[in-house]
Amino acid sequence: MEIKIQKRVLEKNETEADKNRAYFKENNVFVLNMMSSPGSGKTETLCKSLGRLMPGIRTGVIVGDICTANDADRLKVTGAKVIQINTDQFGGDCHLAAHMIDTSARELGCEDLDLLIVENIGNLVCPAEFDIGEDARAVVLSVTEGEDKPLKYPLMFQVADIAILNKVDLLPYLDFDAPLAVENMKKVHPGMPVFEISAKTEQGLDPWLEWLKSKVKEKIG
Amino acid sequence: MEIKIQKRVLEKNETEADKNRAYFKENNVFVLNMMSSPGSGKTETLCKSLGRLMPGIRTGVIVGDICTANDADRLKVTGAKVIQINTDQFGGDCHLAAHMIDTSARELGCEDLDLLIVENIGNLVCPAEFDIGEDARAVVLSVTEGEDKPLKYPLMFQVADIAILNKVDLLPYLDFDAPLAVENMKKVHPGMPVFEISAKTEQGLDPWLEWLKSKVKEKIG
Repeated sequence: MEIKIQKRVLEKNETEADKNRAYFKENNVFVLNMMSSPGSGKTETLCKSLGRLMPGIRTGVIVGDICTANDADRLKVTGAKVIQINTDQFGGDCHLAAHMIDTSARELGCEDLDLLIVENIGNLVCPAEFDIGEDARAVVLSVTEGEDKPLKYPLMFQVADIAILNKVDLLPYLDFDAPLAVENMKKVHPGMPVFEISAKTEQGLDPWLEWLKSKVKEKIG
Repeated sequence: MEIKIQKRVLEKNETEADKNRAYFKENNVFVLNMMSSPGSGKTETLCKSLGRLMPGIRTGVIVGDICTANDADRLKVTGAKVIQINTDQFGGDCHLAAHMIDTSARELGCEDLDLLIVENIGNLVCPAEFDIGEDARAVVLSVTEGEDKPLKYPLMFQVADIAILNKVDLLPYLDFDAPLAVENMKKVHPGMPVFEISAKTEQGLDPWLEWLKSKVKEKIG
């Protein structure tokens, strides 16, 4: 019975995601859904990336958290248009669903944007199941989390179009085998591009931003 | 409607948790539910702790993951009785529910145990909502995850009896404000004991193990 209910929830979400897709198309905006564990560095990656994208690529961010507006406050400093969703008003949901994005995207306004980034709730499980009408998905893994995470949370790495391996500045202090982590990602998702970066030191940001810019250009022309 | 269904799922879980509680009482075993984000170091903490507990405290572990038996394999080396739950057979559930613990605890056998540790799925959200019939809950946060996590995921820190702040050996290489992290934990859960440890270097393990031993003794006499 529980699985049947889950199926119905996901079907309803799919209809709402289609509505979002139409809205994003109408506004000619590329949408990236960014997912990861709590604390892997999504916000820091965006803080460092947005300055290099704008004003050439006009960027907005929808940032999801159960509580607090900490991340939105950090992101606003970059000059991007930012809106915060707190899921505690939706029963503390552990993921962003399409209907939440619908409301927030319209409130934020997408008419003047080329790129909309959705920073999802920190969770390697449920966000992978919820289509929000995005054009692409990125998963961020940090080098402090262990090489085995792609094998333990395969769906997240399967649905992602690219992966970012963050915090590589910490590698000298860890027993983390970066090539093995990349190998595990490619085991669950053959051919997926993996960008190794340090948001803190800004090492390796260019290749991932080149990928992002090319995807935006591909959609909005 | 979705919230009503959630309520029904949680009510059914509660009945099953009561059944577990009765089984654990009957077998005179203390049960700790250990929760955290993916990669915060629950398994490493247990690997280093079990050797210091046994054979004085006969310990078993139920380890939950969506996929793989990696953690169970690592834990078996300690000599503890270990059983793995893979939730991919339950639709990839992002948490352990009481009915999964019921089956696994009986399969593991609790007659010859003083302590049963449940290593939950890596997720700071949903596991906090599911009572599994445990006596106490521990949340592990690693210093690489950011000081704000207790504020962003308050329920997890509210339901926990203790917190473990792990990977303190990395503090020299991070901009992590450990006193602020502890302050944030105590903001959402006043008076909660916080143990600062490094599972890797084994620094700080004794106080947390003293706490655990005293809780086991309190229950089983």
